[in-house]
Amino acid sequence: MAKQMLLYWGSGSPPCWRVMITLEEKNLQGYQNKLLSFEKQEHKSKDVMDINPRGQLPSFKHDNIIINESYGACLYLENQFKSQGTQLIPDAAAEQALVYQRMFEVMTLHEKMADAIFYTWRVPEAERHDSALKRNREALAAELRIWEGYFQKMDSGSYVAGKNFTMADVMFIPQIAFVFRFGLSQEKYPKLAEYYSLVKERPSIKASWPPHWTENPQGSDTLKDL
Amino acid sequence: MAKQMLLYWGSGSPPCWRVMITLEEKNLQGYQNKLLSFEKQEHKSKDVMDINPRGQLPSFKHDNIIINESYGACLYLENQFKSQGTQLIPDAAAEQALVYQRMFEVMTLHEKMADAIFYTWRVPEAERHDSALKRNREALAAELRIWEGYFQKMDSGSYVAGKNFTMADVMFIPQIAFVFRFGLSQEKYPKLAEYYSLVKERPSIKASWPPHWTENPQGSDTLKDL
Repeated sequence: MAKQMLLYWGSGSPPCWRVMITLEEKNLQGYQNKLLSFEKQEHKSKDVMDINPRGQLPSFKHDNIIINESYGACLYLENQFKSQGTQLIPDAAAEQALVYQRMFEVMTLHEKMADAIFYTWRVPEAERHDSALKRNREALAAELRIWEGYFQKMDSGSYVAGKNFTMADVMFIPQIAFVFRFGLSQEKYPKLAEYYSLVKERPSIKASWPPHWTENPQGSDTLKDL
Repeated sequence: MAKQMLLYWGSGSPPCWRVMITLEEKNLQGYQNKLLSFEKQEHKSKDVMDINPRGQLPSFKHDNIIINESYGACLYLENQFKSQGTQLIPDAAAEQALVYQRMFEVMTLHEKMADAIFYTWRVPEAERHDSALKRNREALAAELRIWEGYFQKMDSGSYVAGKNFTMADVMFIPQIAFVFRFGLSQEKYPKLAEYYSLVKERPSIKASWPPHWTENPQGSDTLKDL
């Protein structure tokens, strides 16, 4: 089954990483994949544009079915392979609601992270303002404190939505790995640090770890003072 | 069942509207609801903050289960009431994938719409640039052309993901109603206009139509030249 799947991806991209974690958790190893370079603009290549006119990664195909939106691909894989591998969306109402709640809250975290870390990449030089970057960084810090608070209220060793690994973790892990790679203080966010050290040893995460992070384990200190 | 549900909402907010359309489509009329005013900051009131510390609308409760993220609430309602009312996520792989693909593409449309229409509301005066607003408007126009193109490739009278009304429509309709209310040209986007005139007569849409739009049917011409 996995051999009929093809993923175009970029190293370290949270949306790509989400799909890769899901494929691992659903025991769909062995899918075809092509690592592309954002810097070389390979996400705008004909191969990608043919299945994804937006020219974005991930681009994903299963047989003749194309599903490029990362949240959509993850939900599709969970639904189509429900009884295979890890069940990522629980059936029981309360558990299910919490997973959905947290997995979509991650979109806010993703946006605030990008606004803070990629400010100079996103905003043309003539339109940049120190006040905007400062506000974006404060918004990211406030957002991270919300997540730190969630873990404070749960037992030690909990996943995002409780005692089981779920789709909420699939969405959250790439973000949290990113902020620590960009220098977030483990002392100021101890619960997030504890969670991160728990999940980064998980087989699905190790198998999908961004290769350029392995080659170059040194991140940056962009978020050191956050 | 619906009586055990409580929705805090704001008139015209696409995220609130999505949840209301889903409730209608799933035959969950009769839910408790409170219309709140963003202008009066009622979304920051204690009643809301008690179930939604982010102080955002929608805020939604089903018995003791809280699910405030609009995409999450819609998926939760579809899953928990799968056999009731309209089936919004199809089971068959190809149909399901397309629904997921389009419903998450709507998030891009939502973001580009907000960046263009709410620019002055989102960006402090000292940080505004005509070049940014121009770029945001061009990005929205490009995004709308993508959606116009989707409809061009389908039969007349199609919904977002084909012949059936699905969750992709639930997400898309508030956005498309918004851009036409803000003056988008029906002549320049004829397929979107045709779709809009089809869906606005649907009972779930009429039942959830923003009350302040009914009181004041006149929109603005912000997007007239887009």
